[in-house]
Amino acid sequence: MAAAPVIPLDPARRDAAIARLRPLFGERLSTAAAVREQHGRDESWHAPAPPDAVVFAESVSDVQAVVLVCAAEGVPVIPFGTGTSLEGHVAALRGGISLDVSRMNRILRLSPEDMDVTVEPGVTRKALNAHLRDQGLFFPIDPGADASLGGMASTRASGTNAVRYGTMREAVLSLEVVLADGRLIRTARRARKSSSGYDLTRLFVGSEGTLGVIVSVTLRLHGIPERIASAVCSFADIGGAVAATIEAIQAQVPLARIELLDEVQMDACNRFSKLDYPVAPTLFLEFHGSDAAVEEQIATVEAIAAHHGGGSFRFAHAAEERSALWQARHEAYYAALALRPGAKGWPTDVCVPISRLAECVLATKADLAANGLLAPLVGHVGDGNFHLVFLVDPDNEAELAAAAAANDRLVMRALDMDGTCSGEHGVGYGKMPFLLAEHGEALAVMGAVKRALDPAGIMNPGKIVPLSPSWPLNG
Amino acid sequence: MAAAPVIPLDPARRDAAIARLRPLFGERLSTAAAVREQHGRDESWHAPAPPDAVVFAESVSDVQAVVLVCAAEGVPVIPFGTGTSLEGHVAALRGGISLDVSRMNRILRLSPEDMDVTVEPGVTRKALNAHLRDQGLFFPIDPGADASLGGMASTRASGTNAVRYGTMREAVLSLEVVLADGRLIRTARRARKSSSGYDLTRLFVGSEGTLGVIVSVTLRLHGIPERIASAVCSFADIGGAVAATIEAIQAQVPLARIELLDEVQMDACNRFSKLDYPVAPTLFLEFHGSDAAVEEQIATVEAIAAHHGGGSFRFAHAAEERSALWQARHEAYYAALALRPGAKGWPTDVCVPISRLAECVLATKADLAANGLLAPLVGHVGDGNFHLVFLVDPDNEAELAAAAAANDRLVMRALDMDGTCSGEHGVGYGKMPFLLAEHGEALAVMGAVKRALDPAGIMNPGKIVPLSPSWPLNG
Repeated sequence: MAAAPVIPLDPARRDAAIARLRPLFGERLSTAAAVREQHGRDESWHAPAPPDAVVFAESVSDVQAVVLVCAAEGVPVIPFGTGTSLEGHVAALRGGISLDVSRMNRILRLSPEDMDVTVEPGVTRKALNAHLRDQGLFFPIDPGADASLGGMASTRASGTNAVRYGTMREAVLSLEVVLADGRLIRTARRARKSSSGYDLTRLFVGSEGTLGVIVSVTLRLHGIPERIASAVCSFADIGGAVAATIEAIQAQVPLARIELLDEVQMDACNRFSKLDYPVAPTLFLEFHGSDAAVEEQIATVEAIAAHHGGGSFRFAHAAEERSALWQARHEAYYAALALRPGAKGWPTDVCVPISRLAECVLATKADLAANGLLAPLVGHVGDGNFHLVFLVDPDNEAELAAAAAANDRLVMRALDMDGTCSGEHGVGYGKMPFLLAEHGEALAVMGAVKRALDPAGIMNPGKIVPLSPSWPLNG
Repeated sequence: MAAAPVIPLDPARRDAAIARLRPLFGERLSTAAAVREQHGRDESWHAPAPPDAVVFAESVSDVQAVVLVCAAEGVPVIPFGTGTSLEGHVAALRGGISLDVSRMNRILRLSPEDMDVTVEPGVTRKALNAHLRDQGLFFPIDPGADASLGGMASTRASGTNAVRYGTMREAVLSLEVVLADGRLIRTARRARKSSSGYDLTRLFVGSEGTLGVIVSVTLRLHGIPERIASAVCSFADIGGAVAATIEAIQAQVPLARIELLDEVQMDACNRFSKLDYPVAPTLFLEFHGSDAAVEEQIATVEAIAAHHGGGSFRFAHAAEERSALWQARHEAYYAALALRPGAKGWPTDVCVPISRLAECVLATKADLAANGLLAPLVGHVGDGNFHLVFLVDPDNEAELAAAAAANDRLVMRALDMDGTCSGEHGVGYGKMPFLLAEHGEALAVMGAVKRALDPAGIMNPGKIVPLSPSWPLNG
């Protein structure tokens, strides 16, 4: 594994900031090696980079205090939720203070009539759904991990049901943010829509802590459907599975989930979760609605699937059956790892226009085969988004180089098809090398926005906007 | 009518810019009074402010040429589509060049598989839908006017079916924008979702020409539903109509349209469109889906409406009946004007969380009654958004002052309920006085973004970000 591209912080600045913060936070500030290590590492392949200290914030004013001290001393601030990001987002590339908001985990208000809720940033998606269940409401967005909602907003997360319910881009109604100079702003009112000024909410969603620290999140909710049905359908080939997906979407079927697993991943899932599905490209589907609506959706999609080489549907209607089915899908990563004991997983994701998805997937699988790489594939196929997990021997330099080169080709292939280098994992530092190829001159606009909101460059430096020799933190 | 808050442009700058542009554009540059007047005026109540000249752009390089000359000479650029905005968006408050993009009206590409399209900014929503019809696709967003899609993106427009299909915030996949220094950027790839960097698309949507000139728009499309049914339902009181709306949304009914007209507006529509609906608070509804889904939606909403004092539904199933029904809704503005011959209409809009909508509407109607103002009310009630049209005698200063004061109270009432000063009309210069009350410190963040992208302040100055004595254009 390559070392993280770290530029250490001036020790005098580090010491000055810690000396000012310690009396404010006492035991809620830690410089213990284990705590620092944990806060510089996420669930990605990328090398960690520990911060100089960790502060456990419990309130907005805690966050403001940390930011004000760090601004005064020229020290980076890296917000930290659950540490489940996948591109090295929390690595302290210039040292500084990891601002852990996991203790800010209160649900601040809930309006069943408006179907919205306001939470502190450390509330996780599963904790929120546990709180909502009695109200007949749910929050749909489900990245693999039980991530914090502040972190999910920061990375513009999505998951298996974005095809129907959207991503964090659509789910966030408003944010409260502590800026790089300690000011607290609210990005929007709670109205469902507004034409009043720049869309600051969407500017902060996906900004990965580089423009400020999210201290509250107001989210749209949805009613729990009257009926939920899940089904699994195997296809003769991946092209058929993708063509069926496109046709179902064009036919206005409001699919709640439509997930593609390739034959390598299905083999892994069968072994890991003790299942007996055919080892073939497979769609995992879910339908939400009234009884009649769900029956109609299923009939429509079954006919479409059959037309494209799909087998008969295997259904899971009861809650426990559905749960087992989706458990297998959610365990796909661990199933993949188990395919090659001792290997490490290197997850990556791209997203392309759905018309190019089959072509992109097939070219990618041919590339993997030609280079002898094992990398199961799962995709949120309704969005044109798919993931690979490279299974690599961390001690084999040649293999690591081959995986890195295949990842580069995957991203460039997606960009050539008018796609993006990340559908949902984000940039962190892992996808930084691809931003210029993707955005061209628009990357300079992102830099201008960053400099306007964080002129000293203290907010999670080295993510989204490149570090430069003259900026930031060396004034 | 109060005069527009104009600060005239330095004549030397104006003359220098026009002298440089005239050889480039010939007869496509006009300084004729009638052309200038038309380009400084929108469909709003607010006083117009003509630009110094109008350039009719036909290409991206035309737009870049105008912006480069204006940047060099320190002269404002005001993008112009159809001139159908409602808050004085196109008024040239500091003079300058109106950049008319209405001749940039080509459809650049269409992908039925991806259900998206790329258009030049001067294509109108009706022209787009005419082009799409043969493909079984449609573009849902329908502000009253046949606005240009560049203008609709600029103002974050919505309309009657935002409750189901979203606003321009959700509809725009990507933009091409000419920046204040002439650079051309593309804000995003065509993938349905991305976590790659700041959401520049959403930053430009709703920025009202203050950050750059939109030169292409890539839009999500939808399939024309198998079945469309419309219905009208009268209620005993407005509270019942709103309560029924909330309950239908909570019951997951995917309403395509749910429009509220108050009894004043219904009286106006009956007279204007020769209809015989009860003069009572009324919902106009539309249902999209398969035959079975539409029948089920109707049955659910009829039961809910009856529970809240709604009468029986009057249906329009056939295309021509539906068209007549929605024609009456779309003519609401003209019907309102006809209620008081000789009066001028002053449209305004606010948006609140739906739980507060009935309270906001009732307090507003009480306010109008107490002040003797005639102002019919229509609302996109599923979004919590409603409009008034003040019908005022333009020569009666006292009446104008009373309407202005009522508008101020309307906005402050909406803000007190965590609502916004504009749900869909935008800011222009009409809603500028309310931005600080709505956004607080976040307005300063909008100013920082504006200064970062348009340091000389030439892009539609005086909109969204306030002019200040020291900025812009006086360097």
